[in-house]
Amino acid sequence: MNKLYSLGLDFGTNSVRALLVNISGGAETATSIWNYQYGKNGVVISENDPLFARQHPADYVNGTRNVVKDVIEKARKNDPDFTPDKVIGIGVDTTGSTPIPVDKSGQPLAFNQKFRNNPNSYAWLWKDHTSAEEAEEITAKAKKSHPEYLRRCGGRYSSEWFFAKILHLSRIDRKVFQAAESFVELEDFVPALLTDNLAPQKLKRGICAAGHKALYCSQWNGLPSEIFLTSLSPDFKGLRNRLYEKAYPAGDQAGRLSSKWARELGLKEGIAVSVGAFDAHLGAIGAGIKKNGLVKVIGTSTCDLMVFPSGNERRLEKIDGMCGLAESSIIPGSIGLEAGQSAVGDIFAWFAENCVPADYSAAANKNKKKIQAYLSEKAARLNPGESGLLALDWNNGNRSVLVDQKLSGLILGQTLATRPEEIYRALIEATGFGARTIIDQIEKSGEKIKEVITCGGIPKKNPLLMQIYSNILNRPLKIAASEQTCALGAALVGAVAAGKEAGGFSSVTEGQKILCRFESKEYRPDKKSVAAYQKLYRLYSQLHDAFGRPDGALFSVMKELLKHG
Amino acid sequence: MNKLYSLGLDFGTNSVRALLVNISGGAETATSIWNYQYGKNGVVISENDPLFARQHPADYVNGTRNVVKDVIEKARKNDPDFTPDKVIGIGVDTTGSTPIPVDKSGQPLAFNQKFRNNPNSYAWLWKDHTSAEEAEEITAKAKKSHPEYLRRCGGRYSSEWFFAKILHLSRIDRKVFQAAESFVELEDFVPALLTDNLAPQKLKRGICAAGHKALYCSQWNGLPSEIFLTSLSPDFKGLRNRLYEKAYPAGDQAGRLSSKWARELGLKEGIAVSVGAFDAHLGAIGAGIKKNGLVKVIGTSTCDLMVFPSGNERRLEKIDGMCGLAESSIIPGSIGLEAGQSAVGDIFAWFAENCVPADYSAAANKNKKKIQAYLSEKAARLNPGESGLLALDWNNGNRSVLVDQKLSGLILGQTLATRPEEIYRALIEATGFGARTIIDQIEKSGEKIKEVITCGGIPKKNPLLMQIYSNILNRPLKIAASEQTCALGAALVGAVAAGKEAGGFSSVTEGQKILCRFESKEYRPDKKSVAAYQKLYRLYSQLHDAFGRPDGALFSVMKELLKHG
Repeated sequence: MNKLYSLGLDFGTNSVRALLVNISGGAETATSIWNYQYGKNGVVISENDPLFARQHPADYVNGTRNVVKDVIEKARKNDPDFTPDKVIGIGVDTTGSTPIPVDKSGQPLAFNQKFRNNPNSYAWLWKDHTSAEEAEEITAKAKKSHPEYLRRCGGRYSSEWFFAKILHLSRIDRKVFQAAESFVELEDFVPALLTDNLAPQKLKRGICAAGHKALYCSQWNGLPSEIFLTSLSPDFKGLRNRLYEKAYPAGDQAGRLSSKWARELGLKEGIAVSVGAFDAHLGAIGAGIKKNGLVKVIGTSTCDLMVFPSGNERRLEKIDGMCGLAESSIIPGSIGLEAGQSAVGDIFAWFAENCVPADYSAAANKNKKKIQAYLSEKAARLNPGESGLLALDWNNGNRSVLVDQKLSGLILGQTLATRPEEIYRALIEATGFGARTIIDQIEKSGEKIKEVITCGGIPKKNPLLMQIYSNILNRPLKIAASEQTCALGAALVGAVAAGKEAGGFSSVTEGQKILCRFESKEYRPDKKSVAAYQKLYRLYSQLHDAFGRPDGALFSVMKELLKHG
Repeated sequence: MNKLYSLGLDFGTNSVRALLVNISGGAETATSIWNYQYGKNGVVISENDPLFARQHPADYVNGTRNVVKDVIEKARKNDPDFTPDKVIGIGVDTTGSTPIPVDKSGQPLAFNQKFRNNPNSYAWLWKDHTSAEEAEEITAKAKKSHPEYLRRCGGRYSSEWFFAKILHLSRIDRKVFQAAESFVELEDFVPALLTDNLAPQKLKRGICAAGHKALYCSQWNGLPSEIFLTSLSPDFKGLRNRLYEKAYPAGDQAGRLSSKWARELGLKEGIAVSVGAFDAHLGAIGAGIKKNGLVKVIGTSTCDLMVFPSGNERRLEKIDGMCGLAESSIIPGSIGLEAGQSAVGDIFAWFAENCVPADYSAAANKNKKKIQAYLSEKAARLNPGESGLLALDWNNGNRSVLVDQKLSGLILGQTLATRPEEIYRALIEATGFGARTIIDQIEKSGEKIKEVITCGGIPKKNPLLMQIYSNILNRPLKIAASEQTCALGAALVGAVAAGKEAGGFSSVTEGQKILCRFESKEYRPDKKSVAAYQKLYRLYSQLHDAFGRPDGALFSVMKELLKHG
């Protein structure tokens, strides 16, 4: 059997990961990780501004070089059949929106001596929130002149996104802004680099970043109009032309591996490099998402990715509180829909670190258990509702469906006998109710969610959470088998970009059949618990609406508390 | 100078305490404590029923004997002028409602061989809550036929109180009930014992227990009518006659020390023994309460005692959510008003035990601080409102002003950066807002509270709490100097009972001038914090009303959660 391989590159917040996949048999042959070198864990931060987060593009270039060489070496050891010339495609996923200011040749300005110590010329990492004011301006202007722009991004343009960041740059650093010929998302920069297509006119942009972060939509001929953009700032005059007209789905070819990079990496020149996309979106592909499916990436927060049939845009646009809706952003030809919960694992970690007493820590140590595993064990012995506790999962605000960062956590029902494991369980349940709220909001529109697949750091580690979620959602829950669904999805679209004739896949769906596996353990709802959670969810919704909806009886309370701080 | 002394006996939940006071100079000469011997820490409990709490009357008799002998011995050592013949009076305060079934001679049925192993024949300790159903029946019947009965006890008869307990006894143990000639409150039993006036016809009942727990009121000629009582149960026929017609304030003589007890204790025969009263009420006297004053006993819970001028009954009766109103129950001739918070120190203790992480415990240990002192230090560095947290102080329900045990705790405003000291402070603040809610409720009626004196376990131990309370209440706060305001108040009324001619006091007020002192440190509100807390209190009230008032938007939530448990 003539084995072929595809390479996935996954650019995260702190490191880049490579995965070599045997696309004939579906096995993950080798993986490697390379930590970024600049800043703190790869993030260039500011002492004075917690909202500031940049990345040096050199980390992307060096990271690519190092991680690919290493993964090839590992693959040779792991798999006697492997040789680098059997790699037929490369796919790339990255964080985003992470725009990089580039010059006329497409080189990041950060590589220019003039700007080397100026982080405004670096990549503006997704979690840079310095552009909050600009995001509000864009929202306000779009509301007035182009409400259709907002219908696809949850009604509000975010400070994490492309144009807010560029607008902020134009105000705080004219030199960098004026030196920038264009701005390139990280997801597009890496494929362009590998295919020697960096020049902005040649560079193929991905529809994932375009649609979800830059208001790109075929309905209004691509990016927002020149008139709208110049209304944001006269400095934006001409910018639209220096960006792009058309964007492409992952699986399309960004180009072919350049001879220079082929040499550098030890791969075959001319193999296909896919158009890039965001990590979560290719992660959804790697997890096995299908039409009317939901992939829930459960980690510190959740990212909820859904795919719906094309043609349903109108209906989907009307669902409040989603993070974004874009054509072909996950599976080409279908609609990708994003939602999310601002904190999940982060809440449990906060609780474990700040609220668990010494005797519990000691007992966990003694039993050689991590504190959360120890709490889970105790919490698993409780019945739903037994503790009398109920919590809201808003310690980091609420992304979906309220889209409100100015909300905060709540827990109620405490008595003098309330135990730590009861609170821990209530916090898990709260995130489960939050998950249910998102699904309910979508299904109220008439769309159906037929399958829920989970992935991310938590599902394999926390069976208690999985069973609780299954009971709260009243649905079976699958777990994607791969530890690296993002890199797997990237490798998959790399093989799609290579195409059938090169031994790759003819479509994402075909690739998924071969590459995507599930854990044998599937969580199924337990009837009795479902009924108990039904009742608790009703109470959760009461709290949710009272504190979280603008017409709620206690809507002002959390906001007023923030103001006093 | 011819020093004279008075003896205070303070019967608590776990022990009895004696205090010998020099009533000429105001000094506390000696104190002694004796732990009850029966049950667990003096409380006879039931494995099967957490609501069950009884006490063996032998502990009262043996306790009196032992603690008085010991305090006399100590006084001899502490004060060269002291001799037992200089003791001119005895006062008694106790827990309550703690009724004891007695036979015709006034002996507790528990002393009868027949009942010695039957705890239904013991004293029914104040915190025995087995009579919840009976309390509801009494409330319901009074609402219909005698609403005036309820106006003085917060609108609801409690399971802790006299008639509920007797009614429950009549249903669960006919033998004990039928053997009981009468039922005597502990506050009345001890003075009767010492003066050999145990026989129910002779026994002088205190107006404190009568007014606050047995619906006694001069307005309707004492106890509830025979018709009402027999409507509760036909078994109650004739009971009213075997109870009492008239009740007396502390400071009146219950009688004179019998020769038997004088011999036993080594005191002079014939000295005055005051009519008894509850610990909190005599504690308020010992703390220095005046007309229009509030004494706040701050410990595991709070007991709030107030004194208002006679003649204001009508107005005071209209204040919702007080625990009770009775003539002469604190200062003879004035109205005593009771309110309270179900948990204060208990909430902090719960938090310290269940919610403080190991690194905090370790740091506290290292600094040789108790964990609450360590938390207080950190919490003291925060500004009001800085944490963004807000809590409700209902972990043990709400006594005043909602009178609702089916409420529970709440905390909101948590982020991923919330620290334990912030939560600790929010809980202290919540109890402060609860305290303010009580005062506001009273002042809305038109009554003024002119002075707040604190006592109990917390004020001297927790300066952070005291300053926060002063800022929230926007009032100066005094602290009663005595560590034992209850026993001091008991000794004081003992000297009032002895009377001027015996060298005692002519009135409670006169006694207070000599015996009651305050700590030199008085807490005064700080302007800036007052303003900040004003705003937070408004938010607290919003939560309070939404979750706690029957017409509140979220009133059902806490109740529903209890039902699921």
